[in-house]
Amino acid sequence: MPEIMVFAATGRSTEQKRGLVRDLTEAMVKNFGVAAESVTVQIVESPPDSKGKGGVLFSDR
Amino acid sequence: MPEIMVFAATGRSTEQKRGLVRDLTEAMVKNFGVAAESVTVQIVESPPDSKGKGGVLFSDR
Amino acid sequence: MPEIMVFAATGRSTEQKRGLVRDLTEAMVKNFGVAAESVTVQIVESPPDSKGKGGVLFSDR
Amino acid sequence: MPEIMVFAATGRSTEQKRGLVRDLTEAMVKNFGVAAESVTVQIVESPPDSKGKGGVLFSDR
Amino acid sequence: MPEIMVFAATGRSTEQKRGLVRDLTEAMVKNFGVAAESVTVQIVESPPDSKGKGGVLFSDR
Amino acid sequence: MPEIMVFAATGRSTEQKRGLVRDLTEAMVKNFGVAAESVTVQIVESPPDSKGKGGVLFSDR
Repeated sequence: MPEIMVFAATGRSTEQKRGLVRDLTEAMVKNFGVAAESVTVQIVESPPDSKGKGGVLFSDR
Repeated sequence: MPEIMVFAATGRSTEQKRGLVRDLTEAMVKNFGVAAESVTVQIVESPPDSKGKGGVLFSDR
Repeated sequence: MPEIMVFAATGRSTEQKRGLVRDLTEAMVKNFGVAAESVTVQIVESPPDSKGKGGVLFSDR
Repeated sequence: MPEIMVFAATGRSTEQKRGLVRDLTEAMVKNFGVAAESVTVQIVESPPDSKGKGGVLFSDR
Repeated sequence: MPEIMVFAATGRSTEQKRGLVRDLTEAMVKNFGVAAESVTVQIVESPPDSKGKGGVLFSDR
Repeated sequence: MPEIMVFAATGRSTEQKRGLVRDLTEAMVKNFGVAAESVTVQIVESPPDSKGKGGVLFSDR
């Protein structure tokens, strides 16, 4: 309300995710004028052989 | 047709998921008038350090 | 927390959506043991020429 | 089962969507060995001022 | 790569969306170390009678 | 741009995923007239006790 879903390849540290969730939420509060507590963020990670760009798996690039 | 995606933190038992998929499907059949067999439900789970609320990871709360 | 996304073709009434949101939330509370206020549901509708099954658009079936 | 969601900017014709749904379904059948009838595809379109790349809205590019 | 999907109720101005896409992208670049050009953001809006919290539609709150 | 998300049960080989990402991307290029490099595909897999059809978990079918 709003909900943010981040679709990413695996491999980020907890520290990176902590900073991302904090900053994405802040961006939402600033621009959409919602309360921080109403914002949820979920990072949906898939392994490099389950994500691709240009038709090629990340595990093959 | 319709498809239901549930975005949740990890940690629920198979018994809980079994009940949820059954009841979500029943809610869809009852309200949208579709056949149960046309309803799919997928629970997309992320670990507590990949989901946050209010800008704070669940693993930090 | 959790978030429920329903992907459906357009064409349901407000009354149908009202009942669906109520019942999906109730199913989540009952099975996952969360507070109703923590559950959000969003129905993402696409017109019949933007959704298909078996390789055929709903607008062509 | 599987479900394919395509997130795109608005602006494609029904003819383009018809071809896409057909070909995406065929790709799924060929590679994952599922029945065509079990595959659903939904195209989720947002207007050019609701989608961006590189931090810039498509309506501003 | 990564992709950010924002699920929100309708009603924000282009100016608000412009700022959001810019700031979400910046947060991704800063925390995940990716190039801005590799980040896409899509805002998926549903009308107030297609989104709810606590089992109640936004159009009824 | 566009982004394709495939929601599936676990259990496919890297070879199957490689072919799927290649063919889905090709279908997008062919029908929507976009550059292959602008297409990302992510396969979001959930275990058989987190996905169901007709109200029944795949792990129970």
